[in-house]
Amino acid sequence: MEFKRLLEERSKEAWDIYLPGLSIDCVVFGFHDGALKILLIKIKGQDLWGLPGGYIKKNEGLNDAASRILKDRTGAKNIYLQQFRAFGELNRSEGFFSDYDDTLWHKQRFISMGFYALVDYSQVQLMIDDISNACEWVSIDELPEFMMDHKNIFEHALVTLRKQLNCKPIGYNLLPENFTMPELQKLYEIILDKKLNRGNFFRKMTGYDILEKLDESRKGGAHKAPNLYKFDLDKYQTALKDGFKEGW
Amino acid sequence: MEFKRLLEERSKEAWDIYLPGLSIDCVVFGFHDGALKILLIKIKGQDLWGLPGGYIKKNEGLNDAASRILKDRTGAKNIYLQQFRAFGELNRSEGFFSDYDDTLWHKQRFISMGFYALVDYSQVQLMIDDISNACEWVSIDELPEFMMDHKNIFEHALVTLRKQLNCKPIGYNLLPENFTMPELQKLYEIILDKKLNRGNFFRKMTGYDILEKLDESRKGGAHKAPNLYKFDLDKYQTALKDGFKEGW
Repeated sequence: MEFKRLLEERSKEAWDIYLPGLSIDCVVFGFHDGALKILLIKIKGQDLWGLPGGYIKKNEGLNDAASRILKDRTGAKNIYLQQFRAFGELNRSEGFFSDYDDTLWHKQRFISMGFYALVDYSQVQLMIDDISNACEWVSIDELPEFMMDHKNIFEHALVTLRKQLNCKPIGYNLLPENFTMPELQKLYEIILDKKLNRGNFFRKMTGYDILEKLDESRKGGAHKAPNLYKFDLDKYQTALKDGFKEGW
Repeated sequence: MEFKRLLEERSKEAWDIYLPGLSIDCVVFGFHDGALKILLIKIKGQDLWGLPGGYIKKNEGLNDAASRILKDRTGAKNIYLQQFRAFGELNRSEGFFSDYDDTLWHKQRFISMGFYALVDYSQVQLMIDDISNACEWVSIDELPEFMMDHKNIFEHALVTLRKQLNCKPIGYNLLPENFTMPELQKLYEIILDKKLNRGNFFRKMTGYDILEKLDESRKGGAHKAPNLYKFDLDKYQTALKDGFKEGW
């Protein structure tokens, strides 16, 4: 009941502040412990999980709105953020808050602009706002049931990532500054959804001449400490211009 | 003066029929006489040219709206149509109809969804609606001055075409059913914005095994009649799944 009043309050403000009919949904990817994860939230009083999102202020550009929404959730500025598709089917959002009055902002028809974001997992501080009661990283292998069409939005984002792996600096934006070759290979395997041969991967990756091998190696663990690498961003950007032609 | 009243009439209807704040702009590509062309329109009383576009009905999906808008302009159904980017900067459209009252529909802020379309030039019948006085094919080498941010929208569409040349059936959708190898090469050269070596192009294109050589050849002309080809759509689609890796 308390929450119902809060949402109605938010609804009144929203009609004043935001452009009607258009929302933003963000698929925020992070890579941690050998798993590709996305950020999910849960709205109070709802069982289903959803993508973090929001609306566009009347005096704000679309891409600026997406940056603001992500900054409010993650504390991070200068996130790598890309539009990938608009979701504009009828009845994708209209029915969701069915217990509420038809004038409720959140119950209207929204065409949603999908953005995907790539973040360095270690740099993110998750924040819960007052209409949600959870904001968590979830591995894409263990996704819960989604609200509205958010599963569809996520799937389109993942396919986009796969298609752009050879032409956008995806590894650079998902990995910490220093990483091992097995970590990089794991990230590629998850995005491509297939196992890669270790020797071939090493040969191709070093062949593209976009990595710099560091003098230090990763400490700890029983095995021989694996070598650390970082991206040479200039060379990475140059190589991406032509695309990585060899496939994986 | 006559036109002003018409636009104000259209404005009143629009507030009833369409979702506010969201528009569609279409970059319609066609290939003819060795030139890549796009469809441009001119609104009555305006000097600048613009992309054909429209709005989304309150009871209509986003992609369906784009199909309807294109059908109304070209008479063609089942057009190859792809979203490629939303254009949502402040002041991209707000100031355009500056002589009109601020309540005019067309003077509002619109975030515009960009679609590109690929059509078989020979199959299209252009139609002029009552607020425009021209609808023409213009070669991308000879583009006039554009209204609003339409030049920017066009440029993003062309870059998208270039990026997708190896993974979408672009040749299939732009060329007539039967075509010559020089015609296909010319199309690739325009999209890639570079000259290609004739022998290499022939070798790569036949290497992908996506063309079927016809028994007939193109008639007329002083030279030896060039061979005609058509795409084997099944093989084309299969090859596109992996992408054309060799580059051009």
